Amino acid sequence: MASFGKPPPIPTRLGILGGFGSLATAHFYYRLVELTPAAEDAEHVPVTMVTEPSAPSRLEHLAGLGPTPLPHLIQAASTLVHAGADLLVIPSATCHAYYDDIARAVPAPILHLPSLVMQAVAAGGVRRIALLATTPTVQLGLYRAPADRAAVTLLTPDPATQAHLMTVIQQIKAGHDPQSAQRRLTELAGERWAHGADALLLGCTELPAVYAHAARPSPTFDATDELVHAVLHRFGYPIG
Amino acid sequence: MASFGKPPPIPTRLGILGGFGSLATAHFYYRLVELTPAAEDAEHVPVTMVTEPSAPSRLEHLAGLGPTPLPHLIQAASTLVHAGADLLVIPSATCHAYYDDIARAVPAPILHLPSLVMQAVAAGGVRRIALLATTPTVQLGLYRAPADRAAVTLLTPDPATQAHLMTVIQQIKAGHDPQSAQRRLTELAGERWAHGADALLLGCTELPAVYAHAARPSPTFDATDELVHAVLHRFGYPIG
Repeated sequence: MASFGKPPPIPTRLGILGGFGSLATAHFYYRLVELTPAAEDAEHVPVTMVTEPSAPSRLEHLAGLGPTPLPHLIQAASTLVHAGADLLVIPSATCHAYYDDIARAVPAPILHLPSLVMQAVAAGGVRRIALLATTPTVQLGLYRAPADRAAVTLLTPDPATQAHLMTVIQQIKAGHDPQSAQRRLTELAGERWAHGADALLLGCTELPAVYAHAARPSPTFDATDELVHAVLHRFGYPIG
Repeated sequence: MASFGKPPPIPTRLGILGGFGSLATAHFYYRLVELTPAAEDAEHVPVTMVTEPSAPSRLEHLAGLGPTPLPHLIQAASTLVHAGADLLVIPSATCHAYYDDIARAVPAPILHLPSLVMQAVAAGGVRRIALLATTPTVQLGLYRAPADRAAVTLLTPDPATQAHLMTVIQQIKAGHDPQSAQRRLTELAGERWAHGADALLLGCTELPAVYAHAARPSPTFDATDELVHAVLHRFGYPIG
């Protein structure tokens, strides 16, 4: 049990509960490798990853249109722990709708993506941030409570713009032209709902996979990279 | 047991024995996701991945300079099988030095990277191919026997050029500038040892991670993409 003021022990193996979606998962692992300050193979983070693409759609379930994926998520998390993972991540903001239930079911700690992102946003001096995320993530307020705790004001799109964004996210998942997705994200971020924001948040982990760093408005926060930074910090790497 | 003329059953879960190196593994999984003809999350290949970056260096062991990584490789393969993987891949050509020992130790089939690459090369009508791979891969002839079986002539660099290539591979693993690696690979492929080749083979899986498709000489074969094609074929996806 962690004591007050004592840092948690350095984990030995990262568990990635993935496949939600697969592109976001692949991008997360790629960024983890890219951002790890490793001079040779042996200096990388040991990883076990399980993807469960056949789980019922969390997007449909959270919209009240289908069965819950929770048993699949718990099964995957348990497999990771049995395989030796002692710190878990879920590189999907939307899946954090099930965070409490998964965290209760497995003995290993799970990083909470929306919370660590909002801590990074607040630490960056940002007070008002414009959120691009899935419709369930917005409607369930998955970033709202962490934003409130961090004293950050969250701007979210009007319903028509949010519906348009959701279409873009589905097209990214289907492998449509990333350049076109990037253009539409830039347009969406420039619209009226986002006026007055200090920064943009790519809060859905599919978005950083297609939105090149060089093309993003400045400043932009990236849920995937923030998760990578949190992992590297926990594994004891020096982070800039 | 597979009968003559009967295709193997479609697997249910791919096991990736990774971390050799981590960049090659991340690139392999990214390409698997990119090349899968999936319209939504649920249509992707279910994957379990284990990386063992702390295993002793296979490059040092194969050069006679250190202990064998074999127990770590067998442990990782066993973990994959226990987690439900019924088809394994090792996205590292060099690790195929241990292929027979790993394959004997686990009950699931493992795709043999050098063999399936050489089958693709021969199927592409190529008769003479110039190989860029690690020094142990070249010295142990990991592509040589499959090339002989496929009636393909393998051209390999002279020792000084091979040593230079090995430096480039180590720099890729250390995260050096990919653009610079790409330039040096193009130079290496244009040198005397490769004259008379019909095609170039990126036989080490670190190379496709940094060598952009658009910058490659034509035709170029890519060990990572050939492994992805073989996986998708075995999982029953229509491949172009």
